[in-house]
Amino acid sequence: MTSPTAILLISCPDQQGLVAKIASFIYSNGGNIIHADQHTDFTNGLFLMRIEWQLEGFNLPRDAIAVAFGAIAKPLAANWQLHFSDTIPRIAIWVTKQDHCLLDLLWRQQAKEIAATISLMVSNHSTLQSVAERFDIEYHHIPITKTNKAEQEAKQLELLKDRKIDLVVLAKYMQILSSEFVEEFPNIINIHHSFLPAFPGANPYQRAYERGVKVIGATAHYVTADLDEGPIIEQEVVRVSHRDSVADFIRKGKDSERLVLARAVRLHLQHRVLVYGNRTVVFV
Amino acid sequence: MTSPTAILLISCPDQQGLVAKIASFIYSNGGNIIHADQHTDFTNGLFLMRIEWQLEGFNLPRDAIAVAFGAIAKPLAANWQLHFSDTIPRIAIWVTKQDHCLLDLLWRQQAKEIAATISLMVSNHSTLQSVAERFDIEYHHIPITKTNKAEQEAKQLELLKDRKIDLVVLAKYMQILSSEFVEEFPNIINIHHSFLPAFPGANPYQRAYERGVKVIGATAHYVTADLDEGPIIEQEVVRVSHRDSVADFIRKGKDSERLVLARAVRLHLQHRVLVYGNRTVVFV
Amino acid sequence: MTSPTAILLISCPDQQGLVAKIASFIYSNGGNIIHADQHTDFTNGLFLMRIEWQLEGFNLPRDAIAVAFGAIAKPLAANWQLHFSDTIPRIAIWVTKQDHCLLDLLWRQQAKEIAATISLMVSNHSTLQSVAERFDIEYHHIPITKTNKAEQEAKQLELLKDRKIDLVVLAKYMQILSSEFVEEFPNIINIHHSFLPAFPGANPYQRAYERGVKVIGATAHYVTADLDEGPIIEQEVVRVSHRDSVADFIRKGKDSERLVLARAVRLHLQHRVLVYGNRTVVFV
Amino acid sequence: MTSPTAILLISCPDQQGLVAKIASFIYSNGGNIIHADQHTDFTNGLFLMRIEWQLEGFNLPRDAIAVAFGAIAKPLAANWQLHFSDTIPRIAIWVTKQDHCLLDLLWRQQAKEIAATISLMVSNHSTLQSVAERFDIEYHHIPITKTNKAEQEAKQLELLKDRKIDLVVLAKYMQILSSEFVEEFPNIINIHHSFLPAFPGANPYQRAYERGVKVIGATAHYVTADLDEGPIIEQEVVRVSHRDSVADFIRKGKDSERLVLARAVRLHLQHRVLVYGNRTVVFV
Repeated sequence: MTSPTAILLISCPDQQGLVAKIASFIYSNGGNIIHADQHTDFTNGLFLMRIEWQLEGFNLPRDAIAVAFGAIAKPLAANWQLHFSDTIPRIAIWVTKQDHCLLDLLWRQQAKEIAATISLMVSNHSTLQSVAERFDIEYHHIPITKTNKAEQEAKQLELLKDRKIDLVVLAKYMQILSSEFVEEFPNIINIHHSFLPAFPGANPYQRAYERGVKVIGATAHYVTADLDEGPIIEQEVVRVSHRDSVADFIRKGKDSERLVLARAVRLHLQHRVLVYGNRTVVFV
Repeated sequence: MTSPTAILLISCPDQQGLVAKIASFIYSNGGNIIHADQHTDFTNGLFLMRIEWQLEGFNLPRDAIAVAFGAIAKPLAANWQLHFSDTIPRIAIWVTKQDHCLLDLLWRQQAKEIAATISLMVSNHSTLQSVAERFDIEYHHIPITKTNKAEQEAKQLELLKDRKIDLVVLAKYMQILSSEFVEEFPNIINIHHSFLPAFPGANPYQRAYERGVKVIGATAHYVTADLDEGPIIEQEVVRVSHRDSVADFIRKGKDSERLVLARAVRLHLQHRVLVYGNRTVVFV
Repeated sequence: MTSPTAILLISCPDQQGLVAKIASFIYSNGGNIIHADQHTDFTNGLFLMRIEWQLEGFNLPRDAIAVAFGAIAKPLAANWQLHFSDTIPRIAIWVTKQDHCLLDLLWRQQAKEIAATISLMVSNHSTLQSVAERFDIEYHHIPITKTNKAEQEAKQLELLKDRKIDLVVLAKYMQILSSEFVEEFPNIINIHHSFLPAFPGANPYQRAYERGVKVIGATAHYVTADLDEGPIIEQEVVRVSHRDSVADFIRKGKDSERLVLARAVRLHLQHRVLVYGNRTVVFV
Repeated sequence: MTSPTAILLISCPDQQGLVAKIASFIYSNGGNIIHADQHTDFTNGLFLMRIEWQLEGFNLPRDAIAVAFGAIAKPLAANWQLHFSDTIPRIAIWVTKQDHCLLDLLWRQQAKEIAATISLMVSNHSTLQSVAERFDIEYHHIPITKTNKAEQEAKQLELLKDRKIDLVVLAKYMQILSSEFVEEFPNIINIHHSFLPAFPGANPYQRAYERGVKVIGATAHYVTADLDEGPIIEQEVVRVSHRDSVADFIRKGKDSERLVLARAVRLHLQHRVLVYGNRTVVFV
């Protein structure tokens, strides 16, 4: 199981023979499938699949797989991605002042629950610089004001490009990214501290308390130009009661935030999430 | 434990000595407290309490308790209610066409999980009349149109008054009650098929599906003039995935609706719910 | 989606090309796959798959599919079952005195959540005979004593055979079936009122209370000769606290029992459960 | 709310007037109750209460409260404890090699979720010594062998006594304490990696996997002489499926372990847990 694998994520208009064609492509080249999962969205006539096979014994060299599969995918009008399990992605974590999601991700990375290099930290504050130092991670304090946002985002994008970052994780980064930024760098996961679409925007725990809800939650989603409207990857809730103050909501919510964000990042890094429209298929 | 009890629900501005005064009132009259729970809302300086004691051996006759306690409550500027556990409340269940919440409540009433008489059913359709007949419950088909709402609501209120109904349970009644109605008869519990405040109003499952959420839920709340904005009594959620169609959301949601509504009705009938502002304290 | 489908459940020693072979068999005969899910148990080198395709447009007539697929399955040393979605299975429900699981299954069958005919009820008591009559189901009161068990089980098996029952659901049937019975008729689902392996055997709620647990639960499993040791299909838990008496455990537990049993029966009837060893793969 | 409080935990045979007597004692001395919760175990005729009041304005000096309340408690045959919220308890954390529960507790202590001093770490391995150094905590490597257990436990007890430890938290300490040790120092909380009473003892995840359960869990309990049989404080479960390997069970289980242990420690430190017999009352 620890030998490297290839992972294919594919979506295309539904038609007969898709599973047969894709599976036969792998089999005819000597591949051993270890995971295959598909979903058909009948409303939209869309076929979505994740298929993973061992590279050991596969007759095509790695750099020839994409070309070979492209020939099959083209007549299917398919969108597809090819990944290799031994490619270690590079993550940037963006924070403001709260450390719970950050420390949780760092711990999981060290415990090998998350297979990635955490290469970069960006913050609009200097509060968590010492954490970066302890874990030996490059840290950039990039304060955002009303007037400097465009130039600071340019600096951020430059960093992401230069450090070859594959994924940005907003681990309680309390700034809104511009739609230009998101368009330029779309691989961003955010953790929002409510079960969306309830309480989008600021202060969700305060508002949840005022509304008198009996459950609170957290939502991990891809970031799009519309605030808190991106495709949801994972959600979790926790019960609260009248005995819980806003401070208790925040404390309990932090545990949900940590879990939900960590799960979403792990699913993304294992190439288990396919976005279509504003929705996700999560192959688990 | 099966001997009758008195239940006092009280809320008043917080001050020293409240527990002592109330507990001493009961003790000095020979009462044995079997349940006492209190909550202080420090933000609003409000004290809220539920206290229950055995009537057996209590020196005050039932009809003298309210007068005697009133003398204590008055200087505290308290709102309070006195209930007796052997008073069986009379419920009206309002439905449209769906039977899952209705049948669940009927079963629980027969299984003695809910201590109440179900005396009346009202519906804007005749679909579920046969259920009423099977359970020997008075049934009124009161269709609502754009033009007849005021007069039909008058008819409904007349029925509630005449049949001495204590609580109306909207068990998937797909009509909005006018604010005049709610003002006239405020003891109404509704089940809404989403985890409010997400997806208020119509078609929450369809909208939850379109938003791509990973959890759906149900909310039981008291009805107020503002649609789906009343004080929440109970909420529950259930996980969904991309494999679930809207029909699956509805099917899974029904189980949440049944559970949440039944819990809320039971809590209300046991006088465990205290409303203040737009919030509830649920003494469990 | 409502056109009839064929469903293949298969397990065999893992080897290359299995997905390709099975998918190609369906594709080459003109079938459109609407659901395919596989699992590989690497510890045991076992491949397990569920694949479902539309019969409309499929070139093989129904009664030729098994023969044709058998030719493919044989060299794979595969165990397999072929089902058609429009075959309505016949269920027998066995009860003792409690009605909550029974009524829940009957309601779900009427609400079309469970696609089956409920053809037979068997009980060691006459308590629930009136329910059978109301739903127009054949009812047999077959009391079990220490001395008559063997002959009564013979009578039961005769009934199951004669009424062509496909699945027996033990919906709180408080008798242990003999290993001979289970060997003769292996399609039996039981609901046990604890989260197994905690509290197997009698009085689990009483024992859970005495142990002071903070969660209770329910387990649906296939029945084997070893009591409460059969392959688990589904489990659910619910939180309890010191405020809950044994009666509260039982009341809360009933809701779990209803949900868990209904889910397990539905999964079984949709041919989503594959047993291997003492474990299940549940394709959802 | 941040002014110091006194917390009284009391259990005694049930009788009339207990709430009145205790509340009057506080009121007559000028105390303002901010939390009061009681429970009556009718099976055992036992009354249990937690009551908390502000010390500001209380007429009795701290060191006179116990004497004064003792006079009330004596005729009630009560067991009782008096705590002050501004007394910071001293914790020792015992570990083996796994760091997830340890790091979680350290983070919560720094985030002020847990009001305690973590003064001491003990381990039968040296693996986590660097963590102790980073957090500036005294660390003792005390290896246990078959022959040295008695003397090593004597060393441990000496340390607990000398460092004035109030609570030992076994944060994945994979050694069994002798009954002599537990008798000598009874304030010990353990985290067990299953939902007890399922899978007591070693390798619960492996055994859960083999049994094919659909939920796994974690249990925090006080340690008694009987392994994994002590009073349960808190439990939590998480769903698993056939897709989860033993390694996945362990990974998912770790999150439950962290949460459950942290909750139990927090509840204990807030004096919200009352043990009676082999059960707990948790006043939340």
